[in-house]
Amino acid sequence: MFTYHRTIRVQDTDATGVLYFANQLQIGMEAFEEFLASQGFSLNEMIEKKKFLLPVVHAEADFAAPLYLGDQLEVTLSFSHIGNRSFTHTSDILKGGKKVGTVTIIHAVLCPKTKRATPIPLELSKIFTCA
Amino acid sequence: MFTYHRTIRVQDTDATGVLYFANQLQIGMEAFEEFLASQGFSLNEMIEKKKFLLPVVHAEADFAAPLYLGDQLEVTLSFSHIGNRSFTHTSDILKGGKKVGTVTIIHAVLCPKTKRATPIPLELSKIFTCA
Amino acid sequence: MFTYHRTIRVQDTDATGVLYFANQLQIGMEAFEEFLASQGFSLNEMIEKKKFLLPVVHAEADFAAPLYLGDQLEVTLSFSHIGNRSFTHTSDILKGGKKVGTVTIIHAVLCPKTKRATPIPLELSKIFTCA
Amino acid sequence: MFTYHRTIRVQDTDATGVLYFANQLQIGMEAFEEFLASQGFSLNEMIEKKKFLLPVVHAEADFAAPLYLGDQLEVTLSFSHIGNRSFTHTSDILKGGKKVGTVTIIHAVLCPKTKRATPIPLELSKIFTCA
Repeated sequence: MFTYHRTIRVQDTDATGVLYFANQLQIGMEAFEEFLASQGFSLNEMIEKKKFLLPVVHAEADFAAPLYLGDQLEVTLSFSHIGNRSFTHTSDILKGGKKVGTVTIIHAVLCPKTKRATPIPLELSKIFTCA
Repeated sequence: MFTYHRTIRVQDTDATGVLYFANQLQIGMEAFEEFLASQGFSLNEMIEKKKFLLPVVHAEADFAAPLYLGDQLEVTLSFSHIGNRSFTHTSDILKGGKKVGTVTIIHAVLCPKTKRATPIPLELSKIFTCA
Repeated sequence: MFTYHRTIRVQDTDATGVLYFANQLQIGMEAFEEFLASQGFSLNEMIEKKKFLLPVVHAEADFAAPLYLGDQLEVTLSFSHIGNRSFTHTSDILKGGKKVGTVTIIHAVLCPKTKRATPIPLELSKIFTCA
Repeated sequence: MFTYHRTIRVQDTDATGVLYFANQLQIGMEAFEEFLASQGFSLNEMIEKKKFLLPVVHAEADFAAPLYLGDQLEVTLSFSHIGNRSFTHTSDILKGGKKVGTVTIIHAVLCPKTKRATPIPLELSKIFTCA
């Protein structure tokens, strides 16, 4: 399990006074990005060297409580499924130790040239076991 | 069924060259906002007059094809469930007539004062039958 | 002069109840994108074919009135300066016929390979005279 | 001078492969938010208690170098002007110790009821001297 800390900022909120719903899904992706960086994996290099692509094929979120400007969140990411050509990470979002939401994202793994599904590369699968 | 047209703009995309995933969920919400406006319902008035709140309690999306800068989308919104204290809208996203994704969003209806679930107000339920 | 119409949506606003300031700058860019599209110029093709780059080197905005969810804006874009290797577009933002803000953006023109400034390509300069 | 650290994430970038320009202005605001929080000032409380408003009246940014996904930035914020009813903060953005951009934002101070300019409250002016 990997932990990411995040503060709700002005641009995350909307006129109803709370976190704009799609930004909660963004926070789930940020946790994944931060996890990869913590393991020394560079998404920028992956894109520039056209190693492989990790498009999102499904995403979902549950919202259990409103989140306000300035709220300090603890986001715990884990890999709930690691398949052959896709994987799933789930982030629990906690505020003051209480779960206020979840985000689940399924990524496919594609070959940039053929745009076809390809097995999860070793450099990723070996670090997925770290969360 | 309500139809909303949307062009993918620079800010919608990310460094992988396609639509950033969370922005597809945003597009599903935009379709709902546009539908409400088309029926003469003002979200701003709803917020300012503290009539009721419509927080998102669940959201999900499927992604069937990459979407690029400049893509012109047709988004068709319908209400897949209208309950007592919550409702669900689903948007199919089409590009060149082909379905490239979906977004489903469940809203609760809350009383702003008590923050408790309350029945869908008549002014909303009567227009939900229009999509 | 080119006119772009834009409605303020939930995701454009923040917890203060009005348009988040950086999103006004985004609206100025959208007007430019919409102008290019109206002239048959594809930004996506420009990026994919690595023809040239148009990075922003300076941007500024003035804010004369708060903008609310649902506000319908008229954005008028014109080219205030067309230099040798850079150009400037300015958007006036109007609400109900009254000016509520401006956005000015200066773009350089770069060669993607050398990353050096290059003259404005003819395919752009000839359409800039249309706004 | 106050220092804020920020990593460029996927959602900050666009299809040109670099930071979307308006998100640099957002980073300047984040630095201000982070500074206020570091001084114990709560923007959420300010909004909820309707103490005063701090609308942006002018914002500008210079862009000296492209910023990429994963870049780690150091943002140094200082108050370049503190007037009677407005104030200005400027953020220098550094990457690897080299300045790659700036953001300057001017806020007015308004009374929420009258929507008129009001002197900078003591609770703000006393902390502005800390940056």
